[in-house]
Parts: sequence; structure tokens; C-alpha cells
Amino acid sequence: MTTDGVPERTGNNLDPWYANYAERASGLSASEVRALFAVASRPEVVSLAGGMPFVSALPQELIVSSMEKVMREQGPTALQYGSGQGIPELREQILDVMALEGIHGSVDNVVTSTGSQQALDLVTKLFIDPGDVILAEAPSYVGAIGVFRSYQANVVHVAMDDQGLIPEALRQTIAHLRGQGRRIKFLYTIPNFHNPAGVTLAAERRPEIIEICRQNEILILEDNPYGLLHFDEPAPDALRALDPEGVVYLGSFSKTLAPGFRVGWALAPHAVREKLILAAESAILSPSSFSQMVVSEYLATADWREQIDRFRGVYRERKDVMVEALGEHLPQLSWTNPNGGFYVWVTMPEMLDSKQMLPRAVKELVAYTPGTAFFADGRGRHAMRLSFCYPTTDQIRVGIRRLATVVNGELDLLDTFAGTGPLSLPPSPDFDSAPPSDLK
Amino acid sequence: MTTDGVPERTGNNLDPWYANYAERASGLSASEVRALFAVASRPEVVSLAGGMPFVSALPQELIVSSMEKVMREQGPTALQYGSGQGIPELREQILDVMALEGIHGSVDNVVTSTGSQQALDLVTKLFIDPGDVILAEAPSYVGAIGVFRSYQANVVHVAMDDQGLIPEALRQTIAHLRGQGRRIKFLYTIPNFHNPAGVTLAAERRPEIIEICRQNEILILEDNPYGLLHFDEPAPDALRALDPEGVVYLGSFSKTLAPGFRVGWALAPHAVREKLILAAESAILSPSSFSQMVVSEYLATADWREQIDRFRGVYRERKDVMVEALGEHLPQLSWTNPNGGFYVWVTMPEMLDSKQMLPRAVKELVAYTPGTAFFADGRGRHAMRLSFCYPTTDQIRVGIRRLATVVNGELDLLDTFAGTGPLSLPPSPDFDSAPPSDLK
Repeated sequence: MTTDGVPERTGNNLDPWYANYAERASGLSASEVRALFAVASRPEVVSLAGGMPFVSALPQELIVSSMEKVMREQGPTALQYGSGQGIPELREQILDVMALEGIHGSVDNVVTSTGSQQALDLVTKLFIDPGDVILAEAPSYVGAIGVFRSYQANVVHVAMDDQGLIPEALRQTIAHLRGQGRRIKFLYTIPNFHNPAGVTLAAERRPEIIEICRQNEILILEDNPYGLLHFDEPAPDALRALDPEGVVYLGSFSKTLAPGFRVGWALAPHAVREKLILAAESAILSPSSFSQMVVSEYLATADWREQIDRFRGVYRERKDVMVEALGEHLPQLSWTNPNGGFYVWVTMPEMLDSKQMLPRAVKELVAYTPGTAFFADGRGRHAMRLSFCYPTTDQIRVGIRRLATVVNGELDLLDTFAGTGPLSLPPSPDFDSAPPSDLK
Repeated sequence: MTTDGVPERTGNNLDPWYANYAERASGLSASEVRALFAVASRPEVVSLAGGMPFVSALPQELIVSSMEKVMREQGPTALQYGSGQGIPELREQILDVMALEGIHGSVDNVVTSTGSQQALDLVTKLFIDPGDVILAEAPSYVGAIGVFRSYQANVVHVAMDDQGLIPEALRQTIAHLRGQGRRIKFLYTIPNFHNPAGVTLAAERRPEIIEICRQNEILILEDNPYGLLHFDEPAPDALRALDPEGVVYLGSFSKTLAPGFRVGWALAPHAVREKLILAAESAILSPSSFSQMVVSEYLATADWREQIDRFRGVYRERKDVMVEALGEHLPQLSWTNPNGGFYVWVTMPEMLDSKQMLPRAVKELVAYTPGTAFFADGRGRHAMRLSFCYPTTDQIRVGIRRLATVVNGELDLLDTFAGTGPLSLPPSPDFDSAPPSDLK
């Protein structure tokens, strides 16, 4: 690793093109999550690692009939190239989806994309010169950190607590960076049911975050794939609802419908959206007409709000089981108790290392994502992300029991050799190393 | 425009984020082709502008039944995230497709993408630092020039004639650039049924091109969407067939099946393919499982070779009609007579400007793509690309008649005011301004 936490250029003499890669290619390295996909695919492993939605809960017949209808009524259009911005009908329907979170936008400013990941990539491509700073929560989405690195951004984390991003920490971080003459391009934030932290930005903090960014002329990139998947109260209104000009908003059908279509979107201020369309056309010409039309037909035909309610029920039950099992089997750890989304963030005593522990966990047939994946600066060693979205409740119970075997084995080992009990460690003030006080 | 032909940063005071864009964003400008999509969609206009395949010739029922089968037998897999490299079954089938052009690769080295455009984007992202040189034919594919600009490459054109890229011109261009200390990253080439030039790289030139690149350690990026759409003789073996380690090969189902699925691929040397997968995962996580599985099922079920034969028949007839109509109505112009693909490249007398003429053409209800779209350096003013892939033979006849009205009107006007006949102009030796000698 270089001093700023970016992996050094990989490659070797076996690659004749080694000397020819762009500098940015050095930011491409296999993430922990990627390596885990292979592990998680073995059926005997309970994977608490991935972020796969439980698509088996979908009304499959309705999706098939949506496809048939699209092909029967508009086959040649569905099979053809489309507009780079995406099909107008779907963009209209996306406005209805966003209205549920207080957003009132124009269909002109919606750009559909190959999953919201592509929109994230394109916004980064539009704004980031090498060395520019992107602010992100500590921890943050592993896939975003990967994109930011691939454009040679410096990701600077901002502390969060159980109420989400801390405004005062944001203010101080900006002042500190500005004092160093650094160029801050945007704040990347997941306000609702955070991946991986599982917390939600408090309603009263939202205007304050926006005001801080506005004063400092920092764009907000609001990533909200889980907003509609709340377990109790709906999430507060989106940041975009409060500030149409200062926010690029990213949405997705991957969690509320299905990721296999790769349909997401961005809602951007008009001038940004103009450039975003050009960037999208450059990258892929146009998103899949067929995928967009099937999603559109599904939205027109299905009671999609009720389907999202069904997903909520499934995920809430799984989250409850996971939190209960953690309390039963791993009471010496701390964890967040999310009100929505897919993830619980678990903090272990400081002497444990989740990445080093992973092979032992896989041997015990349970997988998770090590906390270091969610930091650009090497933090997160004694944290992990557990996802409850895909495994059944029974699998979750088994998985947590297996995880307890591994963690307790590690702690026993440390106890034996160090002669000091792990529970005597004082909690750290950092979110990475200690959970928010009232969550567990 | 700046001196190197790159448009200056667009934007204005109405965009509050104007000062925040990355430098590369200045390379994003609306292409001629993009503006024409809007025009071409008006039903009264005969569009000879776009590159839309004639998807109505597809066996629609078979595609519907492929979808149904995928959903019935593997619904949850089709709706889920997949691997970043693409599904193995499809990658195996892609080997069969490429074998038709003499390519023998490993399934491990195939990466599927959101259309081959995405693979083009990712390869460029992997290799290009700002200021690096990409060599490309003169003219070259407008969408590639757009991608290259978006990564701040300098595109340097290499002359071609009716046998394709000229080896001696390639050698001289490389020597000239090396003499200036420029860093050449790759040669981008469309060897078969070139877009827009309509010519094919002669078989005997292929080993020579490869040898020149090998000696100069220049990667070849071979873009071959049209290779199987030959009208008479099949195209010579692909460059990739002759040099597995020096070529990244791009293929697509957009022209042989349908662009609406957005399924293309890259076949790359092993080390490059490794980075390509990481870049793809960063950009979109994974390509659409559903799209890939439908294409895979179609390939397994349909007689896809016969379907490609049908496409060949349709396109050959349309090309014949276009060339015949050009001979009848516009004998004073020159054009290429392609042996496959989608496009005829038309060269007008030097005093005509195809971009300036376009509004008049649209008023006459015919559209084409001005030649300047296919050059990074402002050339191509008196050339245009006519596509015969989408309009019917009747529409092509009408379109060429309308085009003749416009061209002849322009020539009359010039004749009247200049007092000199347009046909007295000597032909230029440049491919851009004069056609290959034996083609018309």
C-alpha cells in the first residue's frame, strides 16, 4: 500500500502490457466483497456477506406476463437501441417512486442507468480529477469507494453516529481540508438504512448537512437504494427533497424489484443531468430498452407498493432474528439495530481482526464482509458487516451461531495467550470501533 | 475549440456546478449523431443516419419463448446480481460465435459487457492517461472518438484506402509521433465492413499491421460488430485470430441479434482481462443476468447462423439498392461499395459541406451523418455516412432521391455564384475527400 491507502499498481512481468496501463488502473484491486462472492456461492456456507435481495419473494408470473406484453405490443422497440437518457414512460414512473420520499422532480432531469452503480460511476467521472477529495461517511459503501478510487479520488471519511453523519464532524473535516488547500468535489452519503452501518440520518440533521454543503459549494451525491425498505417509520424526506439544486440523487430498482434488470437512475440538477446523459451515451450508447420496458410494464401492472411492503416484512423478520441471535450468542459484541435496509454493523473488541478471522469463519461455514472493505483508509479491522437480506431466518440463526463459535474461539485464544479478558477493554469513541451508545 | 480539436469546456453561469467538473468533462459534447436521433425519429424523415439494425427480421416468438424458459427454469437467478465477468454458459457460446472468424480463445478470457460500447469504454479507462495517443483509422467510429475524448486521449488518424488501414501510413504515423515523444497506447481498428468507411482490411495487410504494432509495443483494440454480416465472401480471419496476446477483441450481439439487450463482450489477454473484470465491477457491479440468459437461451435454441444469413440477405439487398440509387441520382459523387456491414461512405466535391447542408436535407425529409462526426480533427466536411441497415428499399430510393435534390441544389447554387462547375475540381488523394479508385 502507498501512504495514502491506495493499493500500489498491481501486475508483473507476465503481463506484457504492464507498463501501458493508465495511472487510474492502479486503483483497481479485488475487493473483499468480490473474493467473498466465490466463497458465498458454496451452498454449505451461510453467507451473511452479500447484498443480494430476496428476489424469490417477487411475483414471478407477473414479471413473465410483463415481458410477454412488452414483446407482443412493442417488440421491435424493446429490441432496439433507445435514448441515452432512458425511456420517458419509465422516467415518469420513477417520479412516482421518488414522490414517496418527498421528492418532486421533472421527468427531464431523470436519467436511467445500468443499475444506480453506473450513475455513481458517471457522476464520479464527470466531477473527479485525480487528487480531488470526496467526503464519505465512516464507514461507506464498498462499491462507491471502488469507483472513487478508479478515478483517483481521495476519499476522506466523516464520522457518523447512531443519528447518521455528524454535522459538526462534516464542518470540521471541510475546514481542515480547506486549510490544506484540498479541492473537495462532493459529499457522498447514504442517508437511509446505511450500507454498511445500518443507521439513518436524523431528520433534524438533514437541513444542517445541506446548509454546510451549500455554504462550502460542495455537491451532495445522495445514494438511496434502501429508502423504501423501512421496518417501522418511513425514512425522513430525502436530501434531494430539501435541495433540488445542490443534490444529485441516485435511485435503484435493484432492491425494490430486482437487480437482474440493472435498472437504476439519477435525478440531477438540469445542467448536471445534461452532462450525465452525454457521459452515459459515451459509456454505453443507451441503457437496455427491454429491461426498462419490462420494469415500466411491471410498475404499471403490479401493485408494486404492496410488493415493497412484502419485502419490508421479509427483511424486518430477518433483521429481528439476526439481532436476537447476536444478543443470544455474541453478547460481548456490539451492533447496530437498523430500521430498514439490508445490513447490521457489528463491532468486536479491538484485539480482533475481522479480515484475519475470515478464513476461520469460512471453515466454520459462515461468511461476512470485513469492516476494512468499507473504509478507504485501512480502518474497520475489528468491525464487520452482516447482511440479513438473502438468508432465511433459519440460516441466519445457524450463521450467527457459527460466527459465535469463531469469535469466541478467537477470544479464548487471545485470553489464553494475553492473560487479559477481552471485555475489560474500554470502548473507543470512534464509530468504527464502538457502536452508538444506545444501539445494540 | 482548443487547438487540438477538443471542444472547450461547455457550461455557463446558469450551472452552479460549472467550476466543479473534472477536466475530462470538457471532452463531452453532443455529437452530430446524437442530434440526429431526434430528427430521425420523425416518421416523415427517411433516416440514413442511424446504425439501428433491422430487428423486425428477428424470430420474435422464439425470443419470447426464450424469455419464458429462462424465467420458468431459472427465474431467481435471472433476476439476481451475477458475476462481473458474465455468465459462463454465454461466455462458452461466445467462443462458438468467434470461432466463425478464426478466433480460438478461452472462456476465462471473455468478459461480457453492456454492449461492446461498455467494453470499449472500460479498455480506454484502463489504458488512457490524459494526453496519451490512440491511433484510429481516418475516418473512425463516432462513438469510439467520443469515448476516447472522455478520457482525454489524443486521437491521431491513420490513412486508409479501399483495402483498409494502410500499413505504411501506420508505420510513418508511429515514427512521427515517437519522434515527438508521444505515448501511443493502442491502435483502435474496425477491420471488417468499417464504420463509417464501409471497407475491409485486406487479408494480406493483417499480419503486417500486427507486426508493426508488436514491434512498437502498441496494443490493438479490434472492434468487430459487423464481421459476420458479409454479403459475399466472409471477412478474413480476425486480427485476434493471428495474435492472441497483442489484441483486445470487442464483439457484440447488437448487430447479429438485438441491441435492446445490451450484450457485448471483450476477449482479452489474460492479464488485461483480469483488470477489465475489476473495471467492469466497479462501473456496474455486474451485467444484466436476465439479458445474458435470454441471449444464451436464444443461441441454444435458435438456428442463429441461419438468422444471421437472413440479416445478410436483407442488408445486401438494401446496400445494392442504395448504391444503385446513388449511381442513378448522384453520379457526380463518389462512394464506397461495402461487402458487408451497415454503411456507405460518400464523398462530395470539396466545396460542399455536409454539416452545413444537413438542415436543408432535413427540410427535404432525408437525414445522414456528416463526415466530421468521424474525425477527431475536423476533417470530413465534404463526406457523409449513409446507412442502409434500417430503412426499407423503397425508403432508401426515396431518401437518395431527396438527397440528390439537396446536393444538386447546393451545386447549382455554387455554380451560379462561383461561375465554375463543381465537377472540374480535381480529386484529392485523401480518403476523406476522394473514394478508393476502384470503388463507386
